[in-house]
Amino acid sequence: MAMFTPIVIVDGQINGTVSPLDRGFAYGDGLFETMRFQAGQLPLWEQHKKRLLYGCRRLQIPLAEAVLSAHRDALGAVAAQRRIDSGVVKVVVTRGEGGRGYATPQVLEPTVVAGLYPGPGYPADYRRVGVRVRICEQRLSSNTTLAGLKHLNRLENVLARREWSDSDTVEGLMLDRDDYVIEATASNVFMVDSKTLLTPALHRCGVAGIARQIIIEILAARAGLAVRETNLSVQAFERAEEVFLCNSVNGIWPVAALVDKHYARGAVTAELQRCFDLYLQECMACH
Amino acid sequence: MAMFTPIVIVDGQINGTVSPLDRGFAYGDGLFETMRFQAGQLPLWEQHKKRLLYGCRRLQIPLAEAVLSAHRDALGAVAAQRRIDSGVVKVVVTRGEGGRGYATPQVLEPTVVAGLYPGPGYPADYRRVGVRVRICEQRLSSNTTLAGLKHLNRLENVLARREWSDSDTVEGLMLDRDDYVIEATASNVFMVDSKTLLTPALHRCGVAGIARQIIIEILAARAGLAVRETNLSVQAFERAEEVFLCNSVNGIWPVAALVDKHYARGAVTAELQRCFDLYLQECMACH
Repeated sequence: MAMFTPIVIVDGQINGTVSPLDRGFAYGDGLFETMRFQAGQLPLWEQHKKRLLYGCRRLQIPLAEAVLSAHRDALGAVAAQRRIDSGVVKVVVTRGEGGRGYATPQVLEPTVVAGLYPGPGYPADYRRVGVRVRICEQRLSSNTTLAGLKHLNRLENVLARREWSDSDTVEGLMLDRDDYVIEATASNVFMVDSKTLLTPALHRCGVAGIARQIIIEILAARAGLAVRETNLSVQAFERAEEVFLCNSVNGIWPVAALVDKHYARGAVTAELQRCFDLYLQECMACH
Repeated sequence: MAMFTPIVIVDGQINGTVSPLDRGFAYGDGLFETMRFQAGQLPLWEQHKKRLLYGCRRLQIPLAEAVLSAHRDALGAVAAQRRIDSGVVKVVVTRGEGGRGYATPQVLEPTVVAGLYPGPGYPADYRRVGVRVRICEQRLSSNTTLAGLKHLNRLENVLARREWSDSDTVEGLMLDRDDYVIEATASNVFMVDSKTLLTPALHRCGVAGIARQIIIEILAARAGLAVRETNLSVQAFERAEEVFLCNSVNGIWPVAALVDKHYARGAVTAELQRCFDLYLQECMACH
């Protein structure tokens, strides 16, 4: 894994900084995307861009697509110049600088921050053998207006992630206040039940991840699986044949242990990993 | 009302800026206070400081009290130098700069931003005659870990405040998903029922404001009133004799109209306004 100093472009300026009056800083009034950068490309750029623009519409943040693309290009140019060809790109968009109160100024200029960071460098075994997952105490609150969005109000995820510090535990499942599993702190979660994939419905809370969406809309059919988004309890996950996590940066990780329940790495998860890799290759070839 | 360019001190630096890697910007991982600055003083500084330090303990942000006081002193010095003696002071504290993910770095250096802004300059009639209040569509989500705190995850308040733009409407009541009134977008709310003040219980959501706390702990008794924190519906507010809003900057505002229900300005609200002013005078005299 290549290490380098993060490169952050703020409103077009390399190594720029953020105004303390920015509404992202003041209220978490914005959205973000985290995506993989590999072989000098952002294979899932189109998907992330689409979700970000959708989120901006839902929060009524007037982001121009051209501004977003300009930041991607600028970041790509710096990466090429510094001969960096892999890592993680994070894009943050906020409603921009505002006054002191909640009311939105009449004229808005969204803030765009595009950063390139070294990859997380997780052990290859996370993907091959699987990861240990805990159940977080911290619950996710329900809000249909915000559900599914990758917005900047992420204190619940931060507090959940602070519940453990041992390196044996890799992720933590988060429940809503009705005891349904929603997601992990930074991943979505699926279970395998015969030829069906089950994953939590996210209309009340949770982030509708890009990897999750690709699995639901494209990869499940390729692997001959049905998909159902529904309410799922911890007990349902304990009874499942296979459980896996996914996100756009790490791809698919089998869950090897959920608290005291252990799973063998299953054939369905392995097949989906293969499909996900192929899909990334297809996206790269199209660029 | 005096107008001036805001003065913002970031980690001790006048007109400093914020790192795009700050966890306040990335996740809303922090807290804030908004307080009145009058006659060159912050009359409620002790109360705000206490709440901020309490919030930091709850979110496990290791803020040193001396750092906070140093920022207050620095802001006071600049204000004196520029002959500014009234306005609004906002203090933001975040967990500091972090990596890209939710996990907290081992070494944390909280970020402190202290800003002095012109006062909002609301018409004197808001206080004398009262304000018109609406009911917001946007609900507050429930989370006992975060309830009461003035944290930086404020998208719900932002979206609620975006529901109206007419200047006749001054505030909006926000409900939880069980249809109980919790607060207004930037104020707490009380109703008067004979010799008792009723205000929403805030153990599931809402911000436990400083003005609210002063009314509950000190002013109610001085005005010969009992206080009860409980679950209150919109209908209960509609049936009330008097309704008022409060916050630390604006003090107490009678509610003149809640949607179609009109209230005469009541004697209890007027007495509490008088008590609040006296209390501010006492705080100023003690400094």
